[in-house]
Amino acid sequence: MNHIESILHFSRRLDEMKTVLRRTRVIATGQFEDDAQHSWHISAMAVLLADYANEPVNLEKTIKMLLFHDVVELEAGDTFCYDVNANKDKQEREAIAARNIYGRLPNALGEELLSLWEEFERGDTPEARFAAALDRAQPIFNNYYGGGGSWKEHGIKHSQVLARIAPVKDGCAPLYDHVRSLVEEGVQKGWLIDA
Amino acid sequence: MNHIESILHFSRRLDEMKTVLRRTRVIATGQFEDDAQHSWHISAMAVLLADYANEPVNLEKTIKMLLFHDVVELEAGDTFCYDVNANKDKQEREAIAARNIYGRLPNALGEELLSLWEEFERGDTPEARFAAALDRAQPIFNNYYGGGGSWKEHGIKHSQVLARIAPVKDGCAPLYDHVRSLVEEGVQKGWLIDA
Repeated sequence: MNHIESILHFSRRLDEMKTVLRRTRVIATGQFEDDAQHSWHISAMAVLLADYANEPVNLEKTIKMLLFHDVVELEAGDTFCYDVNANKDKQEREAIAARNIYGRLPNALGEELLSLWEEFERGDTPEARFAAALDRAQPIFNNYYGGGGSWKEHGIKHSQVLARIAPVKDGCAPLYDHVRSLVEEGVQKGWLIDA
Repeated sequence: MNHIESILHFSRRLDEMKTVLRRTRVIATGQFEDDAQHSWHISAMAVLLADYANEPVNLEKTIKMLLFHDVVELEAGDTFCYDVNANKDKQEREAIAARNIYGRLPNALGEELLSLWEEFERGDTPEARFAAALDRAQPIFNNYYGGGGSWKEHGIKHSQVLARIAPVKDGCAPLYDHVRSLVEEGVQKGWLIDA
């Protein structure tokens, strides 16, 4: 395939992201959220919250990172963040998927997207820290406003969610303060185990 | 509400975009696509196809436009592109919705997003033309690879689709050539009325 053909093939394949389901539920319907919906939501939030990032960020780079951060799940599947066993080999499975998926794009483009995904995973730049903050914060809205959502369904502990949202503080402190208060209210409401 | 509170409230409300259904169907499942999925798909395609835009584009601006181009539908609803009656007052309904929705954000941010939406609607800049190309082209993939999809369901004519995709040529010629060939094949397969 030439460059444009491989890009068009990849563009069509992205439709499958609409079928990779997460454990988080859409607030109004209670249906499982998919990777496309989630990636859109946090990319839009990046635009809205860019001025509140802890460090100055390149917004275009942040959004590129967010739009594609879950595309590895086309081959590696979604791994529930509180599933200890499945998370043991997550990194390896996703790294193989990333090389497969981005290897099918024209070289420069594939390398750029692979490199952005690796940077997101390492979390060692202002953009990666801000992106991680959005990725970790958004499900808190959905669980809280969905009446407990996946917290209740899976018997999740307060301490597990606090560990999960810790990176939000490093990327976007005002967002952390907000989701932290939702988490504390979740404990009060009995949606999270107080442990 | 102060600035950050109004942004967080808006961020939560964006979840509703996952429930605004379009007529296009997701290829693998046949379920209706929603606005969040569609907006993600074309934003990701903007990254992939930026080098093929007819004119040089500011990618960050293009993606901002695409991420938010359908947010007016939170209040105005989705209008089927081939529904002549519903399209008569679409522009007015959406303009009112846009002022309502973006008026609830901090001034500078709300004005930026309103202005980007107006630019997208006018289609008079390189970014707006490229964004429109992606918006018009993506459903062609879904209808074609979904076995006729909303073309078959609503008895759509070849000439209607050709008029609908004409802007793709002005924004991204190689993408136009591709979707045009899918449309012609759609006629051959009997999915579009040859008129």
